[in-house]
Amino acid sequence: MPKILFVAADPRPERWTNEIEREHPEAEVIVWKDDGQVHDAEYAVVWRPPANLFARERRLKALFNLGAGVDGLLGLEALPAGVPIIRLEDAGMSVQMAEFVIHQVVERTRDMAVYREQQREGLWRIHRPIERSKWPVGVLGLGHIGARVARSLAALDYPVAGWVRSERELGGIEVFSGKAGLQAMLARTRIVVNTLPLTDETRDIMDHAFFSALLPGAVLINVGRGEHLVEEDLLRAIVDEHVAAATLDVFREEPLPAEHAFWRTPQITITPHVSARTLREATIAQIVAKIRNMEAGAAVSGAVDPARGY
Amino acid sequence: MPKILFVAADPRPERWTNEIEREHPEAEVIVWKDDGQVHDAEYAVVWRPPANLFARERRLKALFNLGAGVDGLLGLEALPAGVPIIRLEDAGMSVQMAEFVIHQVVERTRDMAVYREQQREGLWRIHRPIERSKWPVGVLGLGHIGARVARSLAALDYPVAGWVRSERELGGIEVFSGKAGLQAMLARTRIVVNTLPLTDETRDIMDHAFFSALLPGAVLINVGRGEHLVEEDLLRAIVDEHVAAATLDVFREEPLPAEHAFWRTPQITITPHVSARTLREATIAQIVAKIRNMEAGAAVSGAVDPARGY
Repeated sequence: MPKILFVAADPRPERWTNEIEREHPEAEVIVWKDDGQVHDAEYAVVWRPPANLFARERRLKALFNLGAGVDGLLGLEALPAGVPIIRLEDAGMSVQMAEFVIHQVVERTRDMAVYREQQREGLWRIHRPIERSKWPVGVLGLGHIGARVARSLAALDYPVAGWVRSERELGGIEVFSGKAGLQAMLARTRIVVNTLPLTDETRDIMDHAFFSALLPGAVLINVGRGEHLVEEDLLRAIVDEHVAAATLDVFREEPLPAEHAFWRTPQITITPHVSARTLREATIAQIVAKIRNMEAGAAVSGAVDPARGY
Repeated sequence: MPKILFVAADPRPERWTNEIEREHPEAEVIVWKDDGQVHDAEYAVVWRPPANLFARERRLKALFNLGAGVDGLLGLEALPAGVPIIRLEDAGMSVQMAEFVIHQVVERTRDMAVYREQQREGLWRIHRPIERSKWPVGVLGLGHIGARVARSLAALDYPVAGWVRSERELGGIEVFSGKAGLQAMLARTRIVVNTLPLTDETRDIMDHAFFSALLPGAVLINVGRGEHLVEEDLLRAIVDEHVAAATLDVFREEPLPAEHAFWRTPQITITPHVSARTLREATIAQIVAKIRNMEAGAAVSGAVDPARGY
């Protein structure tokens, strides 16, 4: 009968704990409170946990992160060494990300905003059709999410390439890797989609040199992390008209502060970190299955390598 | 050395004829003019041809329609019996249609218009994530275009069904057929996408009974023909709030008249018949390949059955 702690700032944590109990009736599921009580739980399901969690709970056998990105968790100084961190794998997120990215790609390639504006004016005017060859897409990162985004756009006949840290094969997608590979990929890319994990190596990767390397009239779609982007370099590339438009779903500070220049830049589309939301049922099913595997002594996938950062 | 007539109201017909000559250097390519001259051409490439074409050109071996829909051509009284009509098959149109439909589906399921409105107000507010199971899609017609639309949405994990005249298999898609099948499909459908050909059987198919059969909060995406839709029945279903929204790319009268109620209905998104445009190079390559096959006495695909209407 494992003890599972739920540690997340959710106004209705019972929606999560009820679902965990439904999936794992033998487990004891406890909502974490900052009341000093020690539970000696074996497992913790966490999103941005407080540091004193680790001071109190010293028998944890694994931490399950309620998201694909573990940069926030790995940044905690109190994080105990040796406790495996298991990230969420897909759980309904990659398909949401793929359709969000397709929507934004089609927004740009098919002039959808122009047609909306024409409708407001009662104007019937046809613009020339898309030539897909003029819209090569480059996807940064080919994990669960990046691979699905890349494959979905390739299925719509866009010329798609991907960039990864170390060499990899992905059917139908041209894959670049390493620093030289990044330059080569950007040089053939007009729409760049960022799905990278945030690590010391990828922080600030989208800077002035990055944007300059893209094809002119470039479009950025950032569904990774705000810290990947050097904000003033994007604004400069937009002023220079080398970058034509950007869709930003993630920001260095969230919510994006009211006075931020992004709000006042018409070339930028802002969404409030909604490109993929965690789906409770799929998430719990995945985490409980992994807890059962760990209890049975079997290996689980999705373990984070702290040195690598994801 | 076949003679090929180009018969379409295009302001720059030489863009087409040059491309035909490039693909078929032995052919003589002539732009049709209403000057009484007889060319005795073997082939005509047509879009909405004038009736006197057929009075003058009496040696035609085939008509190639510059589009997938042949309802306009079949409606011509002067059309000579026995001259095969070859419709355009795909030629880059189905992928455009698929991405256009995905864009409009994601507009609705992911509240994209709400986020645009929030951005205008500088508002950061997250709405709850999509549950795909609540957005079953039904595609009317599973020809080249309908099948690609259906498969593309199924690849994004939407529950997709299709409806066709006569029974058919399509991997991953639940297929309904016949009149009873239409009722059954509509009863499980919230987003209905029309890709049907226009025939006597399909004209006015989207009427009051049709909309009433859909799940409440339904969404219509019409990329077929305007004549499939009983316009006042759609407006009534919107007033009744049984239909929540519609995207209309085709209309009974095009351009849509300025005084039409659709322009003033906020639930309706209007695009000026741009969901799929004919791509010149792919179109010419396909037509020339078919002309070469006919010259060689081989069979060609895409022949229209005038009795069936497509």
